[in-house]
Amino acid sequence: MAPEELTHLDRHGHVHMVDVTGKPVTRRRARASCRVLMARSTVLGLASRNVGGGDVLEMARIAGIQAAKRTSQLIPLCHPLLLGDVQVRFSVGADHVGVEAEVESVDRTGVEMEALMAAAVAALSVYEACKSLDRSMSVEELCVWEKSGGRSGTWQRTDDGGVVNLRP
Amino acid sequence: MAPEELTHLDRHGHVHMVDVTGKPVTRRRARASCRVLMARSTVLGLASRNVGGGDVLEMARIAGIQAAKRTSQLIPLCHPLLLGDVQVRFSVGADHVGVEAEVESVDRTGVEMEALMAAAVAALSVYEACKSLDRSMSVEELCVWEKSGGRSGTWQRTDDGGVVNLRP
Amino acid sequence: MAPEELTHLDRHGHVHMVDVTGKPVTRRRARASCRVLMARSTVLGLASRNVGGGDVLEMARIAGIQAAKRTSQLIPLCHPLLLGDVQVRFSVGADHVGVEAEVESVDRTGVEMEALMAAAVAALSVYEACKSLDRSMSVEELCVWEKSGGRSGTWQRTDDGGVVNLRP
Amino acid sequence: MAPEELTHLDRHGHVHMVDVTGKPVTRRRARASCRVLMARSTVLGLASRNVGGGDVLEMARIAGIQAAKRTSQLIPLCHPLLLGDVQVRFSVGADHVGVEAEVESVDRTGVEMEALMAAAVAALSVYEACKSLDRSMSVEELCVWEKSGGRSGTWQRTDDGGVVNLRP
Amino acid sequence: MAPEELTHLDRHGHVHMVDVTGKPVTRRRARASCRVLMARSTVLGLASRNVGGGDVLEMARIAGIQAAKRTSQLIPLCHPLLLGDVQVRFSVGADHVGVEAEVESVDRTGVEMEALMAAAVAALSVYEACKSLDRSMSVEELCVWEKSGGRSGTWQRTDDGGVVNLRP
Amino acid sequence: MAPEELTHLDRHGHVHMVDVTGKPVTRRRARASCRVLMARSTVLGLASRNVGGGDVLEMARIAGIQAAKRTSQLIPLCHPLLLGDVQVRFSVGADHVGVEAEVESVDRTGVEMEALMAAAVAALSVYEACKSLDRSMSVEELCVWEKSGGRSGTWQRTDDGGVVNLRP
Repeated sequence: MAPEELTHLDRHGHVHMVDVTGKPVTRRRARASCRVLMARSTVLGLASRNVGGGDVLEMARIAGIQAAKRTSQLIPLCHPLLLGDVQVRFSVGADHVGVEAEVESVDRTGVEMEALMAAAVAALSVYEACKSLDRSMSVEELCVWEKSGGRSGTWQRTDDGGVVNLRP
Repeated sequence: MAPEELTHLDRHGHVHMVDVTGKPVTRRRARASCRVLMARSTVLGLASRNVGGGDVLEMARIAGIQAAKRTSQLIPLCHPLLLGDVQVRFSVGADHVGVEAEVESVDRTGVEMEALMAAAVAALSVYEACKSLDRSMSVEELCVWEKSGGRSGTWQRTDDGGVVNLRP
Repeated sequence: MAPEELTHLDRHGHVHMVDVTGKPVTRRRARASCRVLMARSTVLGLASRNVGGGDVLEMARIAGIQAAKRTSQLIPLCHPLLLGDVQVRFSVGADHVGVEAEVESVDRTGVEMEALMAAAVAALSVYEACKSLDRSMSVEELCVWEKSGGRSGTWQRTDDGGVVNLRP
Repeated sequence: MAPEELTHLDRHGHVHMVDVTGKPVTRRRARASCRVLMARSTVLGLASRNVGGGDVLEMARIAGIQAAKRTSQLIPLCHPLLLGDVQVRFSVGADHVGVEAEVESVDRTGVEMEALMAAAVAALSVYEACKSLDRSMSVEELCVWEKSGGRSGTWQRTDDGGVVNLRP
Repeated sequence: MAPEELTHLDRHGHVHMVDVTGKPVTRRRARASCRVLMARSTVLGLASRNVGGGDVLEMARIAGIQAAKRTSQLIPLCHPLLLGDVQVRFSVGADHVGVEAEVESVDRTGVEMEALMAAAVAALSVYEACKSLDRSMSVEELCVWEKSGGRSGTWQRTDDGGVVNLRP
Repeated sequence: MAPEELTHLDRHGHVHMVDVTGKPVTRRRARASCRVLMARSTVLGLASRNVGGGDVLEMARIAGIQAAKRTSQLIPLCHPLLLGDVQVRFSVGADHVGVEAEVESVDRTGVEMEALMAAAVAALSVYEACKSLDRSMSVEELCVWEKSGGRSGTWQRTDDGGVVNLRP
């Protein structure tokens, strides 16, 4: 199928879940990321508390993992999935904290929403921990970078916002 | 209090909830927003299905409202709150869908995380509905624009990322 | 206010929560009920297992109480409430099990949806326990019988489906 | 097995989950419905707001879909299931709104409770949106109309409340 | 694999879920238990209310079953599982109530955490029901007694706290 | 009221929530604890991974805090509460990890169940992280050590399992 239709609208224009009961069970993986922009002093504040800074990121990691598991309760048309693996990783830049989430499942539908949800909630948990320090923060570039498994094959996002199909 | 400390770290550097039991109950409001960047053809696809496009946004509105109510289950150190009002609004641009969320409560702590969560989950619901059409989408500029009530008074974000205090 | 407007639609026709932050905190109560119609043999099967029949109703009671507490997560525009009391009672008739739920709260908005949700989920729990015995069951007359507290005063439903205002 | 035993009671009369670990994974489907009886003026009020009326039903559709996914958290002895498809449809009559829910899964146990839960919560969401207009509403005839898959084969409810087996 | 590594820490020492997507789906079972120590008069109070005492235990049984289904939402690194069977049993001693929980699943990972969670929440539900009678209660010896299925084979706990491997 | 009745049973012996709508809103606090007994080598394994060991405890801390907020969804007759503060602390002994949880709220009912739930789920999260190392672990002495606020005044548990009233 070419990706050209809003699959969530039936022929009357109403939203509905996409029926996945006829799809094969395959291994699926997705990787998403975002960045929490913040003042340099906020990054320093976060980083200078060695353990503490670590603690904030550990808290955010747990929040992201737990959110991935609840995606189908938050996004109305997502199917419940049995996530087999969720990883949340952080990188600390001069003016931001980077968040990357990777999710794997053996199921009938893809896991990109789970990866996006993990990244978003981890980012908001960092935001929450730093909001007494910095009111200028924002979350940017929340998007999917890679997806594999299922009918749409493997594809990757490129730095210019394009998409490259790696396997059919 | 000047906003200069990571309030979620105790003196051992461990995360903990901020004790709000001594704070007064006041009316609190926050407004947050973000944008879902998408291809122009995706915006047209969404918009051309008159009812359908409406339906996707209605679905996303409900998702955002429900997510606001679940913020304390998603963000580990957020306090449970009795939200008195949640509004989620959309605007459709040439290359994006804008999401704005406004939350009010009469409680002991602020509602900016609830507004951010409503905006984020509404945006991801739009993303999910359009992802069969467009793999290049991203969520951008998820941030708080206005907050009132509580010790920190009323402040607004300015277009250059600064913050203006309106009332002490 | 005369009960003449769909309070959940804003002036653009979109759904939104009703802002209750300006309402006074008062004691509120509501009573709802329904009946699970079933074959006489099903009622006998349920009743003949003395302890067991009791157990099915105890299970359904707990399910109803727990569902009342989750109403705002299930009904999109319901406000989260701090329920102070939930009662679920059963009566067994020749061809049905009757369910009555009563909910009390001290809050800014009414609790009729919580009472309806408790009755509905308790009824469906009875249905679930008996469905291997009887495929003809149905839930009937799920409605509110009495409400007190708040701007609309105290009113009662009458047997002919009308409504009597008891206190302004 | 003839449907003649309360499968949820063990030999001591205590409730317990039915062990489904030995059952085969098959495709299962169920369809349930109910009606929200309301004053004719309420139906007109709902219908006359063209977009708005649509919005109320869209909101209720989302609520029903989300509730189907949460059935095992609400009905104590229901098994968690990976729902592959949930559809919620509405019809508007002179004195009622009809709700029909259809659920599909590939799993070890049936989905009639999920279909009933979707219909019930969608109906209560309509009720909630109209309750400022009409205190006389009630939900009626909440029941299963069709079930297929699993040991009990395919059966349909008939208009007189009987049941017809279509396939063994 | 010898059980000698903290499988939840990656090579950087951060917590992460264990990837189970490569594991085979097998039948898995676990049995856990604990005891609620209480004053003899509390046991008598619980027992003397024939129905009531039964009701408290029925309530606790339902609470334990429901908690087992929510384990992955409570324990951060637990995988979501499709539980096929949950049993919660009680025994009443002179100075305690014993709780035993048994869980079965056909899945890629074990169910001992689900059995522990069922036992713990059932015990705390008994505690809660009796706490107006007795402030001295405690929950003791919450542990796993038997596990089967999966790579670690079948093992049993012995009364002296050791472990016996029954099948490789 | 002397603490001498099972407050959760009505006069028919059925469980029900205790009506708290007539109680005054006061500041309430409770402290509970437990210990996870484990092999000395498990404690060493946990401790020797400096960051890692910290991470496991941070994960367990977050799990405990989140569980405290969900107590009313897990314990059937607990009232929903707006927790104002939750602290989870750990101590590491030669053969155990100690867990202490402290909860504060300004509400109509006490928070000892919330403190117990935080301690229990934090302990089970430690258990889960170490279970690949050690099958002999158990959770012991899960109990309340101190409670203040509300009709029953302030009391403390003593080391011999007794209770001392500190303030009426």
